[in-house]
Amino acid sequence: MRVEIWSDIACPWCYIGKARFEKGLAAFAHRDEVEVVHRSFELDPGHAKGDTGLVVDMLAAKYGRSRTEALAMEEGVAANARSEGLGYRIEGRDHGSTFDIHRLLHLAKARGRQEELLNLAYRANFAEERSVYDQETLVSLAVEAGLDEAEVRGVLADADAYADEVRADEREAAELGANGVPFFVLDRRYGVSGGQPAEVFTQALEQAWQGRTITPVGTSSPDAAVCDTDGSCEIPQAGAHS
Amino acid sequence: MRVEIWSDIACPWCYIGKARFEKGLAAFAHRDEVEVVHRSFELDPGHAKGDTGLVVDMLAAKYGRSRTEALAMEEGVAANARSEGLGYRIEGRDHGSTFDIHRLLHLAKARGRQEELLNLAYRANFAEERSVYDQETLVSLAVEAGLDEAEVRGVLADADAYADEVRADEREAAELGANGVPFFVLDRRYGVSGGQPAEVFTQALEQAWQGRTITPVGTSSPDAAVCDTDGSCEIPQAGAHS
Repeated sequence: MRVEIWSDIACPWCYIGKARFEKGLAAFAHRDEVEVVHRSFELDPGHAKGDTGLVVDMLAAKYGRSRTEALAMEEGVAANARSEGLGYRIEGRDHGSTFDIHRLLHLAKARGRQEELLNLAYRANFAEERSVYDQETLVSLAVEAGLDEAEVRGVLADADAYADEVRADEREAAELGANGVPFFVLDRRYGVSGGQPAEVFTQALEQAWQGRTITPVGTSSPDAAVCDTDGSCEIPQAGAHS
Repeated sequence: MRVEIWSDIACPWCYIGKARFEKGLAAFAHRDEVEVVHRSFELDPGHAKGDTGLVVDMLAAKYGRSRTEALAMEEGVAANARSEGLGYRIEGRDHGSTFDIHRLLHLAKARGRQEELLNLAYRANFAEERSVYDQETLVSLAVEAGLDEAEVRGVLADADAYADEVRADEREAAELGANGVPFFVLDRRYGVSGGQPAEVFTQALEQAWQGRTITPVGTSSPDAAVCDTDGSCEIPQAGAHS
């Protein structure tokens, strides 16, 4: 079974939801048969690269609140994070364009290091005093995740590298009906929206597991050009295949 | 959309079916939004490592036919391969245990080189005078596919490396009802069995594309802990989440 998780590194509920999902997965009997793939979703896709600032200032401006009120809003999220055992800093945290991070996460996926990079990037953004909007920080996180430094720098320097992959994920999220993140899709059949309690993920995994059925399509004659486990390979009648 | 293809390197219809699938995919309008993953399936899972021999001799013994009759059986398959533009040798081709090849294909998957290694292995087995049952041949194919030689040798030397991944794929094939290969699964929803004509794959892709719907599971209250594309992150009421 496969779970795809659309998320943005800047999204607190994605960070918290990932921990809750993992707790829910750990309680699922068939957890060893679950593959997890992370997909790109920018909360603010038009955000200009290089335009960074403090999250609390952004929140205060966005909602017309005082800095103290913005801090209180973030404290509500922080309490959720801490209840999952996650570090959560508020005052020093930046926001900005996450496009480059998504591009690097696609490179990491191609190299089998996506989970590693995502965990490091979440930790850097939410739990440490490191800005994921700084290129040198991104390089060091990617290298720490096991990627090749020269390849990472090459991807960062070429704005087109993995850009189509990021946009394809985002287009797919829209096609599947996701307006926000985190968005969890199980075997392209069941969806869970939001950083829900761990039990919800366990239940969804169980439901998806029960619901596995494959509908055969195409011809299924004895001529169907299959090799069976007894080692025999049927040869279709001449002209039956293009 | 994702297509998973269960196959065995020793299976002629997998080799031919891959080419037919790719032709069918090329004719599918949303081909750029299709991800292909290859999964392990051994036609002869109990075959002892190192026990190799000529395919024609195996076929003759298995079906109680003469060598000439076995060659004629293989000619029927070869005609199908050649009609797809694929090379197909008969006389010099070996058979044996494909377990090590599947383990290497999982390493290649983890390093983003699965498609490359599978294509090279198919070509070596079916079109060239190279035995994929020979360890040094496997090493050179894997290096040609872009893998690190030391890592490849390490995996070959450790019989447990990626063994669970091979068996998990095989268990999953059985759970999904596959008795033979190639077996194509589209979004875990639709299945195509056998090396069918290209048009069948195009039709199956179109059917799967139309059939994409996600069933929501779990709570979907306004408290659902989502960050929306307007940048706002709802804070659930205290106690609503674990």
